[in-house]
Amino acid sequence: MKFISFTKGAAHSFGALRDGQVIDLGGRLGIADLGRALRRHRLDKLKNEADKNSADFSIEDISSYRPVVADPDKIFCAGLNYDAHVKETNKERTKQPTMFTRFASAQVGHMQPMILPPESDKFDYEGEIAVVIGKEGRRISENKAFSHIAGFSCYNDGSIRDWQMHTSQWTPGKNFEGTGGFGPSLVTTDEIGENEVLTLETRLNGQVMQHTTTDLLIFSIPELVSYVSTFITLLPGDVIVTGTPGGVGVKRQPPVFMKDGDIVEIEVSKVGILKNPIRAE
Amino acid sequence: MKFISFTKGAAHSFGALRDGQVIDLGGRLGIADLGRALRRHRLDKLKNEADKNSADFSIEDISSYRPVVADPDKIFCAGLNYDAHVKETNKERTKQPTMFTRFASAQVGHMQPMILPPESDKFDYEGEIAVVIGKEGRRISENKAFSHIAGFSCYNDGSIRDWQMHTSQWTPGKNFEGTGGFGPSLVTTDEIGENEVLTLETRLNGQVMQHTTTDLLIFSIPELVSYVSTFITLLPGDVIVTGTPGGVGVKRQPPVFMKDGDIVEIEVSKVGILKNPIRAE
Repeated sequence: MKFISFTKGAAHSFGALRDGQVIDLGGRLGIADLGRALRRHRLDKLKNEADKNSADFSIEDISSYRPVVADPDKIFCAGLNYDAHVKETNKERTKQPTMFTRFASAQVGHMQPMILPPESDKFDYEGEIAVVIGKEGRRISENKAFSHIAGFSCYNDGSIRDWQMHTSQWTPGKNFEGTGGFGPSLVTTDEIGENEVLTLETRLNGQVMQHTTTDLLIFSIPELVSYVSTFITLLPGDVIVTGTPGGVGVKRQPPVFMKDGDIVEIEVSKVGILKNPIRAE
Repeated sequence: MKFISFTKGAAHSFGALRDGQVIDLGGRLGIADLGRALRRHRLDKLKNEADKNSADFSIEDISSYRPVVADPDKIFCAGLNYDAHVKETNKERTKQPTMFTRFASAQVGHMQPMILPPESDKFDYEGEIAVVIGKEGRRISENKAFSHIAGFSCYNDGSIRDWQMHTSQWTPGKNFEGTGGFGPSLVTTDEIGENEVLTLETRLNGQVMQHTTTDLLIFSIPELVSYVSTFITLLPGDVIVTGTPGGVGVKRQPPVFMKDGDIVEIEVSKVGILKNPIRAE
């Protein structure tokens, strides 16, 4: 099943997407946000609610997409998780995954502009696969990790490179408002097998900039879930962004940065295409 | 005025503290959490509500303290913000502040145990002053920063040192559940002047481990507010933890780490004393 978060008129809501039609679950449950809905109800309850109802309107009728989970309690991002990216950044592999964080307001939804702030001209894409947690857990073992995942989405971990490199900690460059794309939908794990190899591609103005497959992840998705849940309880709606492959703009010769009017797409097989225009603030 | 967040019986609430008595504002406003209350209402509204009501019960009657803001939208922490700490860690000063993040569940309240997890024996204290935002703002200039601050509290940025050093990003070591002390109260800015120099001291089992004054901050509180708000909107209830001085346990010879049964206190002049026992999980 596919879930989307959206604005329709002035209202926020989320729903299931079926044959281009939306079953408005937010309205039915009286909960505007998918994250909150996942924390309040089991994923199965949301699926059942979608299954037993007919569609409310066409996807064409929504006003805009919101980030798939617009209200996560936590967003963790893996850095340096594909060898080609480790090499292009002249880093060394580490024994544990490199984890940094984003806050929710640093995200935008599918088709919403990703914002180039006036403080920088070094706005870079990072195509990634996002995992959304469906079931609470602490110290989740790798072999149980898949059962804690609600599903997958595309993520563009858009980075303001000069601010990322102000100090050793990447926080500022990863948390400029509206710089991370997340969508278009959450595709639940019943549509994607546990050991399925997904293909990830980033295109800037139609040109392929990054291309990889998930068998090349240094730390697998179960390893990331297990590692993060060792130190903190993962809640439903929490997001783990799994890392970007080689080909980022800042390491190209000459470097490539995104400009006002550019179109950036992240495609993940079986998951979808996240498309965002770049808009200078 | 002083605000506290607490549990009484099974209920979460927050209130104002006056002469050892609590005015229960959470109950009156129907909002359990101070962060949410600050986002919904102006700080002045909360102060007025406290001023016009008589006390509901004694501070002795609460069941436990919660983190002063148990539900912040964002927590930013400054690293390497006192020269003595920069030197003891063999780092260099940076032109911009070093900012990392915590999530809310990595916090505990005054008198609550700070949790030493079984994954480590390298649990270190970091005495700090926390700033709580009172008024929303983006790109706040330094000279307006003070007007965006609701008040101050004590913070123990408890760190699991080996996990902090797994990779270049400090996230895991700063986000083990229940490792950061925050309290006892939020002391509003009407009690502490804009240019007042505060004294900060950390004691472990009564022994002074850290001692400094805020005139020694490398990046001042207005500079931190201005820098962070450049990239993201600061909301009421957001927390900026301003950095620890020299004297951390990991850099002592021999190193000192906190053990089950230890008592750690963070004292900030005019703000209060945050006291936490250490408990091995």
